[in-house]
Formats: sequence, C-alpha cells, structure tokens
Amino acid sequence: MGKCGLRHRLGRQPAVIPKAQATRQMLSRNPTVQPEINSIKAEVDEIKRRRILEEAIGQFFDKGYEATSLESIAEGLGVTKQFIYSRFRSKAELLVAICHAGAAAADQTVAFSATLSGDPAQRLAQIIRYFVRLQIEHRREVALYFREAKSLPADEGLAIDSSKQRFHRMLRGLLNEGKASGKFDIADASLAASALGGMASWAFTWFQPEGRWVAESVATELAALALRTVGVPDPLSYLADEPI
Amino acid sequence: MGKCGLRHRLGRQPAVIPKAQATRQMLSRNPTVQPEINSIKAEVDEIKRRRILEEAIGQFFDKGYEATSLESIAEGLGVTKQFIYSRFRSKAELLVAICHAGAAAADQTVAFSATLSGDPAQRLAQIIRYFVRLQIEHRREVALYFREAKSLPADEGLAIDSSKQRFHRMLRGLLNEGKASGKFDIADASLAASALGGMASWAFTWFQPEGRWVAESVATELAALALRTVGVPDPLSYLADEPI
Repeated sequence: MGKCGLRHRLGRQPAVIPKAQATRQMLSRNPTVQPEINSIKAEVDEIKRRRILEEAIGQFFDKGYEATSLESIAEGLGVTKQFIYSRFRSKAELLVAICHAGAAAADQTVAFSATLSGDPAQRLAQIIRYFVRLQIEHRREVALYFREAKSLPADEGLAIDSSKQRFHRMLRGLLNEGKASGKFDIADASLAASALGGMASWAFTWFQPEGRWVAESVATELAALALRTVGVPDPLSYLADEPI
Repeated sequence: MGKCGLRHRLGRQPAVIPKAQATRQMLSRNPTVQPEINSIKAEVDEIKRRRILEEAIGQFFDKGYEATSLESIAEGLGVTKQFIYSRFRSKAELLVAICHAGAAAADQTVAFSATLSGDPAQRLAQIIRYFVRLQIEHRREVALYFREAKSLPADEGLAIDSSKQRFHRMLRGLLNEGKASGKFDIADASLAASALGGMASWAFTWFQPEGRWVAESVATELAALALRTVGVPDPLSYLADEPI
C-alpha cells in the first residue's frame, strides 16, 4: 500500500462519520443493492474496489490525473494492472467513480435532511454540520471533481449538476421555511443558500488534517456561523447538545 | 471575433468595476510599468494581448484546456497563429497568464483594503463587496485557475498560493481588530476568515450573467450577510450609503 493508501490516512484523519457506512455509500458501484454485500465474497470485492479508488484518489490528487498511470496505481497498491482491470475498464472509469463520490456529499446531505424534523434552526445546524464533515472527509474527491468535471462524459457531468441543484433547493426550502416562521431574518433565501453553501463547501480547499483544526470542530463552528448568517441570535444553544 | 470574444461578453455582462483599470491590472504582463502603456503602440499591443487572452479564456472555459488548440483560438479571433505567437510562446503561457488573472482578485483586494480606514465593519463591508465583484467579473479565470492550477509550473503555483495566503491574513487581521474592539462577535478570526472567504469566493461557481441577479446586488447582499456572520446586528447601515 502506497503512502496515500487507506490505512495511512485513517491513522491521521479521524473518521467523522461512521466509516463503513460512509464508504459504502460513497464508493460502492450500486449502493441500493445492500443485502448482497453481506456475502463474504461481495464484501471482499468491495474492499478491493475501495482500495483501488483510495490509491487513485491519492495519486490523482497529488500528481494530477494526466500525470498518473494505471501502472503507478497498481505499483502503489503492490498489485498487477490486471487486478485493477478486473474492476475498472480504464483510468477514465476510475475518475468517473471518484467524481461521483465527490458530488455524493450533496446527495447524502439531502437524504439526511429528509430524516430531520422540528425547528428550522436546529435542522439547519445539523445539515451544515453533516455536510461540512463530508466535504472535509472527502475533500480530495471534491477537489478532483472540481478540477476534472469538465473532462467527464456529458451525462456524468449532468448527473453531478443535478446533485448540486437538489442540494441548493433543499437548503433554499429550509431557509424559506425559517423565514416564513420568523426564525430566520434573510432578504432572499436563494442567495442566502448560495452563501451558506459556499461557506460550508469551501472547507475542502483549506482544511488540512495536519493543521490545528479537527474536522468535527470546524463542522460545529461553521454551523454556528451559518445560523448567525441567517439571523439566529443564539446559535450555540442549537449546537451544545448535538450528538457527535 | 468568435462567440466568446470580448465584445460579445461585454454586451451581456455589466462591467462592475472600471473596465480599463481592471483589465490593465489583471491581464497586463507587467502591471508596475504603467507609464509606458501611455504610448499608442504600447496601448495597441496591450489591446491585442487582451483580446487573445479573452478568446483563450472563453474557449478554455467552454471546451476545456486540453481540447482547445492555438489554431482554434486564432480562428475565433480571425487572425493567424503567428499573431498569437508574437505575444505568447505557447498555449501553456496563455494558461499561466489566465491563472494569474484568476488569482489576482485576492491581491487586488488586499491592495484595496490597505486604502481603507475607519470602522472595521465598514471596511469589511467594502472589502467583501469589492472582492465579490472581482470574483464575478473574472469567474471564468477563477474557475480555470481552480481546474488547472495543478498543471502550472511549481513556481507559478506557489505565487498563487501566496496570494491566497495574503488575502486570508488580511481578512483574519481585520476580523481580529473588530473582535478586539468589541465590534465583531466571533470565536476564532482565522476560521471566520475562511468562512467569509468561502461565502464570497463561491460566487464564481454559481453566478450566471443571464440569471436574475446582477453582480452589484450579489456583492452588496453578500457583504450584508458577511457582516451578520461576524455578529454585526445592523449590516444595512454599513451598506446603504456605499458608493457603487
């Protein structure tokens, strides 16, 4: 396993959401077919697939997509190229899977938001916190998606755009709800949703696992700032009792 | 002139800061040598150089850097390849100039901030507004820098990183000043600076000139949201009398 492998980064980087669940959702080829993964063979296949993707993410991120070869990914993993070819047809297919994982944070957050109920400020705090955690945990996939989305096949690019639009609509809807109830003080929910989306997304550009921040604190602080941005006067009261 | 040429986009896109000044600062090879530009020859050269860059920005943005050739840029401008070669040695040199222009918004905003005095809230409002205008006006250069910075020569990449760090330090310093004076209510000035930087920068990803927002309103609204994020209770009082 190369220096960018799974084990190495798990050591440095706290798993901010349950790792098995997150990785299965983000990287599995078909996340709706959960029961089959229960067989040992399927689970082993999934682990192999995930390791290949982790190595590809590390090398694409460090050296760039163009400068990385399937040979160097195989070398980094200590496997043959055939090991990779039995799971991915090409380097481009690896990139597509990674860009999907980068965009998946938006879809996961929309799904998470649908499980919440109650006060809009409470929900906004949970949503921003959840999304920031994902953006930080998958910051290299997100960065790769930003860098390489232009090179994706058109339908893949459109699918990713749709994820971003669903995320924006969810956030805008929640802000409108909070505005209607008098909880949020905002002029325009769509612009405020874009502002909060930027504040939360941007973490992928500046968060450094070796830096002074841990992901969980960043997620909580950004949630507090987001509440204040929309006019909630006492943001910490919505965050103090949050389960981590 | 191709569909992405200067004239076409100037028609659609309101110039949010004085165009001549902005373009000279952003795209000139050596912005410190201003007096020479006063000669007619130098001015004509500068216009030609700028037109080439505008065409390159449009084509790189729409088709991607790899898929764009110097031939198609020459064709879009209705000139010979030699016309381009007399000003830029290669496609890569065009990209370097564009990425510099994308990163220049940060440096220009730092320079702008040094001209301001008075109340930290007032200054923060002006700085965010100024920066958002630039991010929107040069959103394609900013997007290209994000996509292609990895492919830049190492020293060019480092220069751009330094711009971003100077911008962050300027914002963090102002937030600390506002915190010390009791004007801003923030837990950590560095994290708040990253949050505001994200909120303001993100506009380059979502602003659409054909959409319902004009750049100036976005800049003002984001400045108001930024003031509230740092705990200023009456942001509009800092923005109402601002000269546009």
